[in-house]
Amino acid sequence: MAGLTGGDPSLLRRINSAVVLHALRATDSATLTEITRVTGLSRPTVEGVVEGLIEAGLVVEAAADGAAARRQGRPARRFRFRAEAGHLLGLEIGPHRVAALLSDLDGRVIGAQAKDVDENASADERLERLRTAVAELLRRAGVARGSLRAVGAATPGIVEADGTVRLGTALPGWTGLGLGERLSRSFKCPVLVENDANAAAVAEHWKGSATECEDIVFVLAGLSPGAGALIGGRLHRGYGGAAGEIGALHLLGRDVTPETLLSTTDQPLHPLDEQAVAKVFAEARGGDERARAAVERFIQRLVHDVAALALALDPEMVVIGGWAAGLDGVLDPLRRELARYCLRPPRVALSLLGEAAVATGALRLALDHVEEQLFAVEGATARR
Amino acid sequence: MAGLTGGDPSLLRRINSAVVLHALRATDSATLTEITRVTGLSRPTVEGVVEGLIEAGLVVEAAADGAAARRQGRPARRFRFRAEAGHLLGLEIGPHRVAALLSDLDGRVIGAQAKDVDENASADERLERLRTAVAELLRRAGVARGSLRAVGAATPGIVEADGTVRLGTALPGWTGLGLGERLSRSFKCPVLVENDANAAAVAEHWKGSATECEDIVFVLAGLSPGAGALIGGRLHRGYGGAAGEIGALHLLGRDVTPETLLSTTDQPLHPLDEQAVAKVFAEARGGDERARAAVERFIQRLVHDVAALALALDPEMVVIGGWAAGLDGVLDPLRRELARYCLRPPRVALSLLGEAAVATGALRLALDHVEEQLFAVEGATARR
Repeated sequence: MAGLTGGDPSLLRRINSAVVLHALRATDSATLTEITRVTGLSRPTVEGVVEGLIEAGLVVEAAADGAAARRQGRPARRFRFRAEAGHLLGLEIGPHRVAALLSDLDGRVIGAQAKDVDENASADERLERLRTAVAELLRRAGVARGSLRAVGAATPGIVEADGTVRLGTALPGWTGLGLGERLSRSFKCPVLVENDANAAAVAEHWKGSATECEDIVFVLAGLSPGAGALIGGRLHRGYGGAAGEIGALHLLGRDVTPETLLSTTDQPLHPLDEQAVAKVFAEARGGDERARAAVERFIQRLVHDVAALALALDPEMVVIGGWAAGLDGVLDPLRRELARYCLRPPRVALSLLGEAAVATGALRLALDHVEEQLFAVEGATARR
Repeated sequence: MAGLTGGDPSLLRRINSAVVLHALRATDSATLTEITRVTGLSRPTVEGVVEGLIEAGLVVEAAADGAAARRQGRPARRFRFRAEAGHLLGLEIGPHRVAALLSDLDGRVIGAQAKDVDENASADERLERLRTAVAELLRRAGVARGSLRAVGAATPGIVEADGTVRLGTALPGWTGLGLGERLSRSFKCPVLVENDANAAAVAEHWKGSATECEDIVFVLAGLSPGAGALIGGRLHRGYGGAAGEIGALHLLGRDVTPETLLSTTDQPLHPLDEQAVAKVFAEARGGDERARAAVERFIQRLVHDVAALALALDPEMVVIGGWAAGLDGVLDPLRRELARYCLRPPRVALSLLGEAAVATGALRLALDHVEEQLFAVEGATARR
């Protein structure tokens, strides 16, 4: 405890820097006097910290306000956070496409790139496709690779803390792949790997349907459904990173698989054949009886899966994403059935981010990492 | 941030007291020199803090060690934490019985009392029965009511943060009952109310089957099953306190109820009739074919519920309690089926605490509350 009053000078400097950055980031620009008032730090401390931040490239003197200059003769110098001092990438690696989002240090997206990829592509081919997309994205945006501070990547499967895919049946060659290590070869900054439904949950909380909820379940609906959950605003990964892997739920009742449920023929659909799925939905909307029955069966299955998650976790809100999100009429039956089964039914909403949810969540995870390093005042004081 | 270096004197005193108590609680007794060394506080600070703790009755001078006294002439004074300075109650209020556990401030149980209660008893009768049990327990243990520092109470149903039972169908008159407020009339100390399965999860983590796991699901198996979960060692209550209320899961498949599954006649069992349930289990063990089939159906249902929880939460361990815990052969089918459905199957164990789990968990929650007040160094420094 002695450290609390005495203090480690370098730790204190880091904390003070974080406090000042935090304050500057919350505003367009501020004078030293304003920073002093907001942070509670002394004027000399603020001066020293701001000087250090300017040297580090994270803060710059802002252009003087014209009106104030005229009024006061020589106005006080103003400073602003340089969000352009670094960049972040959010990557999605899926069965049919790879996608990349580029942002500045404020998380403002400044570019996006996506490429189709064959569902049978090998891991090497898929990663090569991603590398190409990233290279094009950086070139178009005029951002140097060295400016990247963190990269987030999201993919189907169970992902270990070290970025290894422990189990990923949707993508060829994915199980056992050291995805974090492979991606790290292309970047000098930290690379964080996350399950795709988990990333999407983070994204909907950040800038999607669930910005006002801290306890949410995101369901990546599809023939191989998955789910991600935030508890108290934080990702719940589970003990082994497998939380929400509800793809096996339908096995419990010895029921048929979603591929069979949604088929209008005697043959099940291919688990990754989104076009065939879209066709069934379109036919159902067109009034085809067989397709409508198939869609009805599929919705019942989705309701079952979501209800099991809601009963186990009791979220405030359930967000439905994946391709089923485009499906008319999925919300009403979901709400009706959840009201029937749950003691306290959660709100149900469709994903606002749609196709962009997974890459957006990966970007947010990269941003979280950088914020922890640059701005984490609370973390810095709590950890001793 | 200015507070970090300057410091609030009363906050610092509280922190220092907590640090010294923490140190004393971890050992039988200690000298001022030892406390100074362990805590990193100055000698005068330690002397002042110990003096204050003695005045508060939380610390006392320990009897001098005879050998040391002979060796050194006048040995250094030793001090110890007075675990007997206060007491805690853990209460269970169930459909068939009320139970109370009494402990000292170290959580050491020094007395227990249980009473049967009719499943049809009104809320008033049930609470009166509990009051009698508590009064007898305190009298037998020779503990004054004023010595109680906190009371934990656990009961079936969804419990709000303020101790109101939002929904509790198992006990007559329970839904809407201000249980925390009602119990508070009997005690001057804080009363904490918790769901029974949640409390049992806490108990198994404290001194049961799951002492080495931080991510567990406890299933209170029975005709009205419930579950509690710890995530990272902390209780997961859900947004509305309804997490783990899996009693409705069997409705999802339009399946029949457990009462019907486990019946050997054409009539379903009564949901609270544990004796009838025990009879079916006994008949099954005795070789009765109809009973064996009923038990088999019941186990399949339990497996289904547990698998849904495991898929949603991905715990390290599942602990099975409630009366089904006495059932031979529930573990093997559970392990087999979980291995089949879960990408990473959790360990499965029976409750070690059995009937005492719920009251023990309630006691632990009371102890947590007191520890937060007396010993929470980390909390005191992190909160600003």
